[in-house]
Amino acid sequence: MRELVLAVDLGATKILTGIVSIDGAILGRSRVPTPGDNPDGALNMIADSARELIRVYEIREQEITGIAVATPGPLAFPEGVVKDSPNLGWGEVEFRKEMSRRFGRPVIVEKDTNMAAIGEHRYGRYSNCQELLYITVSTGVGAGIITSGKLYRGRSGGAGEFGHMVIEAGGARCNCGRRGCMEALASGSSISRHLDEMFKQGSGQGILACTASGVKPGARELGRAARQGDQEARSMIARLAEYLGIGIANMVNVLNPEAVVLGGGVMLGLKDLLLQPVQEYVFRHTFALNREHLALDCTELGDDVVLYGCVAAVLENRC
Amino acid sequence: MRELVLAVDLGATKILTGIVSIDGAILGRSRVPTPGDNPDGALNMIADSARELIRVYEIREQEITGIAVATPGPLAFPEGVVKDSPNLGWGEVEFRKEMSRRFGRPVIVEKDTNMAAIGEHRYGRYSNCQELLYITVSTGVGAGIITSGKLYRGRSGGAGEFGHMVIEAGGARCNCGRRGCMEALASGSSISRHLDEMFKQGSGQGILACTASGVKPGARELGRAARQGDQEARSMIARLAEYLGIGIANMVNVLNPEAVVLGGGVMLGLKDLLLQPVQEYVFRHTFALNREHLALDCTELGDDVVLYGCVAAVLENRC
Repeated sequence: MRELVLAVDLGATKILTGIVSIDGAILGRSRVPTPGDNPDGALNMIADSARELIRVYEIREQEITGIAVATPGPLAFPEGVVKDSPNLGWGEVEFRKEMSRRFGRPVIVEKDTNMAAIGEHRYGRYSNCQELLYITVSTGVGAGIITSGKLYRGRSGGAGEFGHMVIEAGGARCNCGRRGCMEALASGSSISRHLDEMFKQGSGQGILACTASGVKPGARELGRAARQGDQEARSMIARLAEYLGIGIANMVNVLNPEAVVLGGGVMLGLKDLLLQPVQEYVFRHTFALNREHLALDCTELGDDVVLYGCVAAVLENRC
Repeated sequence: MRELVLAVDLGATKILTGIVSIDGAILGRSRVPTPGDNPDGALNMIADSARELIRVYEIREQEITGIAVATPGPLAFPEGVVKDSPNLGWGEVEFRKEMSRRFGRPVIVEKDTNMAAIGEHRYGRYSNCQELLYITVSTGVGAGIITSGKLYRGRSGGAGEFGHMVIEAGGARCNCGRRGCMEALASGSSISRHLDEMFKQGSGQGILACTASGVKPGARELGRAARQGDQEARSMIARLAEYLGIGIANMVNVLNPEAVVLGGGVMLGLKDLLLQPVQEYVFRHTFALNREHLALDCTELGDDVVLYGCVAAVLENRC
């Protein structure tokens, strides 16, 4: 009999659901927009998409080894309670309990960045590393930390809030209320905000020229303009790389990981422009001892890294 | 028979040697200045001070359960090799091998901040915490990280370089070559440098007035002036507290420890002025989930925390 995992990546804008076999083959997947500010709507939508996927791919109940759902943080561990998630716009939601009730069986719930880290650690290129850091650069910025081969969650599940590491005291305002956080300086949302400001001042015409009509320009359009040689776009990319370099170098100095694996839509979409300058920055600005055995690379698992993490979570829970 | 540990805290300026019983009583100690740039001189001095202490306190060879030495970082683990230590001014030194040779028996060698963390974790007030962060604010700044009740060293022994976490991109120049590191903004050396600049510009007279003749003003004099109400001193302390708050909040967001314990000469000497504003900053600028169970406090073990760590290291090695 097949052993399958029902894997769900709940994001601020989309719910990605997949049926994945425990050897890592993705049998099917669906993607629906995340309903607004209403937790109940999202919880129901997850359950509905999963049932639909099960129906379409003719999965039998007994083939499903486990169900795992990744949510944006903060997520209290071990309680599985979402607490004041800025990206979802939710207050306190008993996520694991509600999810398990809807499926009528236990559901594993983990913060999305943690799920990505365990997915990368089991199915990615650096699975042999005991100390691995997964960093996502997407609309937001976050990290999942593997130490001694296991997910590190900290005291209450709050570890990995790399997006809210201040690297420029007094710098740009962040959604979290502080100033100069990674997420305020080097994320999809910071790029959009920065572009808005440029357009208001009449600059960034080369980037606008790369933007399809009706589309709000963001990381994708910035990349397109930079590849065409637009100077403003190139200097924005250079600044982005430097901020990412500073933050990642901080993590390398503090945690001395063996591998730092980068993912997320912005990072993967701009990989050809960002990866090399980020690598150069980090290797120039960390202690020799800390970079000696360091690999710094992009994930090869793409958007599916969180789905792979769901499978890893089910397998780890079963052991 | 007594079970004793020969404990050595090698610092950039002094070598502190102690005879400590395994239940944590310090029987005797000595303090000598660290000889200049010469590793051999320091290694010999450590061995000589230890022998002298053994002679004076009439310790028998067989009473010594273990020998442990703390050194400034970077220190490669598990090799026990000091690598380009800026504070000692050394290149690459086979420290553990040389130390063991001089004592004619195995010597445990650990980075000083790591030693302090395990000392705090075994003998301090937060010994029941599984996730503990020890932060020292002294001439330099550093951290020791305890996860799941054990010392976290990272891949090669380089973890904990909190002093070289950039929190103000483009800020003050650091000894490490980067800009805006914790150590460049909130350490004994940054205070001295800042005071020098003030005096050159003719300001800081209130602090100078608190300085005994022939003494180079530093953290101690700054504290004295602030306690007497000097405004310049007070605003320097406020800035120091804010930088420490930013850095510690970063660590709390990334690592979600249960306890952050502060030590080091600058922190302990200015505790009455710094601790409360640092606590306030950190509790205001971290995620609710991350601060929910957080204790943030100064060590009660004072300067001896590293000696206690040496005992803890010997006990852990014995198990």
